[in-house]
Amino acid sequence: MTKNMFVYETDKDILVVDCGVGFPEEEMMGVDLVIPDISYLKDRREKIRAIILSHGHDDHIGGLPYILPQLPKNLPVFAPKWAVALSQLKLEEFGLFANLREIDEQSKLSLGQFLVEFIKVTHSIPDTFHLVISTPVGIIYHAADFKLDLTPVMGEPTSQEKIVAVGKRGVLCLLSDCLRAENQGFTPPEAKLEEMFEKEITSCSGKFLVTTMSSNISRLKQAIDVSRRHNRRVVLVGKSIEKNFKLAQTLRYLDFPPSLFAKRKEMSNYSPAALTLLVAGSQGQAGSALDKIVAGEFENIKIEPGDKVIFSTDYIPGNETAIYRLIDNIYRLGGEVVYQDIRSGVHVSGHGSQKDLGKLMTMAKPRWLIPIGGNFRHMVAYQELAKKEGFKKGQVILADGGETVELDSQGNARIGQKIETRQIMVDALGVGDVGNVVLRDRQILAAEGIVVVIIAIDQNTHGLEGDPEVITRGFVYIKENLKLLGQTKEKIRQAVRETKGKRLDSRLVRRRIQEELEGFFFKSTGRRPMVLPVIIEV
Amino acid sequence: MTKNMFVYETDKDILVVDCGVGFPEEEMMGVDLVIPDISYLKDRREKIRAIILSHGHDDHIGGLPYILPQLPKNLPVFAPKWAVALSQLKLEEFGLFANLREIDEQSKLSLGQFLVEFIKVTHSIPDTFHLVISTPVGIIYHAADFKLDLTPVMGEPTSQEKIVAVGKRGVLCLLSDCLRAENQGFTPPEAKLEEMFEKEITSCSGKFLVTTMSSNISRLKQAIDVSRRHNRRVVLVGKSIEKNFKLAQTLRYLDFPPSLFAKRKEMSNYSPAALTLLVAGSQGQAGSALDKIVAGEFENIKIEPGDKVIFSTDYIPGNETAIYRLIDNIYRLGGEVVYQDIRSGVHVSGHGSQKDLGKLMTMAKPRWLIPIGGNFRHMVAYQELAKKEGFKKGQVILADGGETVELDSQGNARIGQKIETRQIMVDALGVGDVGNVVLRDRQILAAEGIVVVIIAIDQNTHGLEGDPEVITRGFVYIKENLKLLGQTKEKIRQAVRETKGKRLDSRLVRRRIQEELEGFFFKSTGRRPMVLPVIIEV
Repeated sequence: MTKNMFVYETDKDILVVDCGVGFPEEEMMGVDLVIPDISYLKDRREKIRAIILSHGHDDHIGGLPYILPQLPKNLPVFAPKWAVALSQLKLEEFGLFANLREIDEQSKLSLGQFLVEFIKVTHSIPDTFHLVISTPVGIIYHAADFKLDLTPVMGEPTSQEKIVAVGKRGVLCLLSDCLRAENQGFTPPEAKLEEMFEKEITSCSGKFLVTTMSSNISRLKQAIDVSRRHNRRVVLVGKSIEKNFKLAQTLRYLDFPPSLFAKRKEMSNYSPAALTLLVAGSQGQAGSALDKIVAGEFENIKIEPGDKVIFSTDYIPGNETAIYRLIDNIYRLGGEVVYQDIRSGVHVSGHGSQKDLGKLMTMAKPRWLIPIGGNFRHMVAYQELAKKEGFKKGQVILADGGETVELDSQGNARIGQKIETRQIMVDALGVGDVGNVVLRDRQILAAEGIVVVIIAIDQNTHGLEGDPEVITRGFVYIKENLKLLGQTKEKIRQAVRETKGKRLDSRLVRRRIQEELEGFFFKSTGRRPMVLPVIIEV
Repeated sequence: MTKNMFVYETDKDILVVDCGVGFPEEEMMGVDLVIPDISYLKDRREKIRAIILSHGHDDHIGGLPYILPQLPKNLPVFAPKWAVALSQLKLEEFGLFANLREIDEQSKLSLGQFLVEFIKVTHSIPDTFHLVISTPVGIIYHAADFKLDLTPVMGEPTSQEKIVAVGKRGVLCLLSDCLRAENQGFTPPEAKLEEMFEKEITSCSGKFLVTTMSSNISRLKQAIDVSRRHNRRVVLVGKSIEKNFKLAQTLRYLDFPPSLFAKRKEMSNYSPAALTLLVAGSQGQAGSALDKIVAGEFENIKIEPGDKVIFSTDYIPGNETAIYRLIDNIYRLGGEVVYQDIRSGVHVSGHGSQKDLGKLMTMAKPRWLIPIGGNFRHMVAYQELAKKEGFKKGQVILADGGETVELDSQGNARIGQKIETRQIMVDALGVGDVGNVVLRDRQILAAEGIVVVIIAIDQNTHGLEGDPEVITRGFVYIKENLKLLGQTKEKIRQAVRETKGKRLDSRLVRRRIQEELEGFFFKSTGRRPMVLPVIIEV
């Protein structure tokens, strides 16, 4: 998941598109989220005309609560209806309000030197839009996440005529989703999933559990439609699923009668074969509803023989081991599991594959192309694809995070100055207060543990007063290892003796103890715990 | 990677098959390896007749240096030639010697009540064998890792006639590799790779880099053969590659003239297009040769435009993010990358798919089947496969780690008592000294950090002496956050005041400070660092 944020700038105006969060990478221990670094924007606050959100996924809106408070008050945030609803919900959790304004296909926004129009496209969340941005140097087609689904489960298919019409007006630059540029063909339509659900529910003799991204409303709809046909009551399990479903019903994206549903408490009134559970936690997140159910820690809900769990989801890289562990444990409980490694049709992506992406290129006919929304290898794959579609390699600009692209009125494009951006990490309530030093410490603590040494030194004699105290955490149990403890204390005494001088220099003593023990621990245990000497002068 | 070890036991004798290591799971922070728990064996030392190794992969032999010293001295370890060589090398690193004895297709070992014969099979390492174990209750066919490769790059194809012959003698139980039971068809032959190498090297204008599992000698051979045809000198980069290659040349598994190779120092004498590099680190391991080359930290070797890197490897679950990061960074340096997501033929597995596994079942015609060498979901997939091949579900026994299966002379099988096994973790030089408490501490330290509080308390007044010292690691920088530091000290003073009694009870004071600060930090920062109060009585 990439923390999407794009900035369009003229000499007078700035337009911000999307404001997402990213997941932390593995070595960002304990970090919850990563948000865009907006130092550049803060220095140009007065130029910012608006934020526009392309759709309601977290990697496009999740940064709002952290970033809006740093931008001008009342800055308009334009978004499609569903993204407005989700943003509102998110901001309310933080006690924040924003100047949220709804856009639709008819909207035309005049924002300083920018004129923005919208084209509705298909994706894995309702109300996803591409932006057509008229600028002083030409038209920019901003194609955030999409696929060309001709038979969407909710809403209309992408209006390809409109894209062709924009292409005819002349597109200077196309920014396009590239996440699945490695994959051949078209991404299959969402409607395909219904066959799969139908087949799997028919052969299910127990509870039918479906787990997917909670924001994938149309997937939920399909699972509910199928359950209705099979006379199964639907139970929503997990906060994110409940929240999204309730909002979708309120806003009439979904319109199911309450009689289709059962509350969790009422489940015992139904036989397992009369129940479908829509469960949050498809990425194997610790503490999620599915994780707890499988661990036997969820009130009232257990996996039993005959139950079937459908993982209708992609594995986000880094989550594989957690997901596989869940699958193994469901099998151990006697449940059946349907997942992508054994059934290819159990999930379809919301992102276009090579044919979707290629078709957009040929419809928009841009002079320049910039792949966005993927990692560097996806951008390279997009570049390869563009070559196959008849573009020149040089027309595709690979811009890494923080890099700028300059377009001029002669229609030229070049990579401009790189803006220094840091990874702003959100750790619990702290935003940006966990930096690289803290992370490095956490990495050492995680792999090697810590040894705290407390000694008292006599201010007059400069000698050791009493016995050194040695406390370990995450290192071997030193108290169960008397030999190691004895040697450690001897090393400490030795370090104190060696540093005894005319003046008591605690910094020197501390450093000496640290060196001595680090070497000693590595030699005797092969480990390099963090050594923290504390000196008390008495 | 599973830490394979199988124990066959009669009333009189024990036979151990394989002695592997496993990779630590994500939450086993800082742990290097996991080895089998042999408490059960240690209690029955006198019954153990031998260890037999099926082949030389680490998940089948890597446990030897840790486990052999705990078993009877001079216990014979039987293994195929290549596994003997690798085991010897491994044991020498630990200064150990073992009673290693070579077996081949002709070997018949009479070990107490067991008679063991061997069938040579194909896998991703030379000299891989299946075991045919005659026991008092019948024949057990032990099929460790294999695939049915009809055109192996080194050695002969699996003798299917021999397997059929064993089947005719009557097999009571088949233990079979199941790792790829989710995959349809046959696993493609190794020979397929040569086409791929040929195609990729032909279109490579710079250095040609190949990374694969260093033990995959036949893959190295293919890369060298192709390089030879294209007049490229081969450079071996990375300890594990160099070690394996040297050993394979010495033992004549490989027989290349020295003139095909260039030393690392001589590389500058050749144009990039005249060089092939075989590089260790295909799993993105930090500090490996490939990792260092891509980071620009490897002496003499850089990735430059025109270079091409072939990832001829599976992604071991958990390593995806590291591998993808490498791929992204190679592209950033202007290199080209060939990896499984964009080219399906860049690697083939050494493990059989459904058709390989199904064929073994039908040839061996066992009464019982036990899938081994996979996770629980692979065992379930194997069970499904067996049903398709005409076996009954009940004939497939799913035995989880530590579970026993009892076979009797009437030909019955049942799950026996479960043997309690722990995860024995190897952390640097320590074996088994990192337990769950240390791991839990490491997890807290990793995610939340630690706060050490040092206070001096007057033994007479029971009051605080001087200012409390507060040291943090992996938590927010408290010294940069004066407000938080001030409040923390105030909380400490308060805790000391509240616990002031007739007697100085340091344990009580410590606990009170801990509670007070844990609550305070969570409220003010949302985090739960480990709080370690140290009290000095003065």
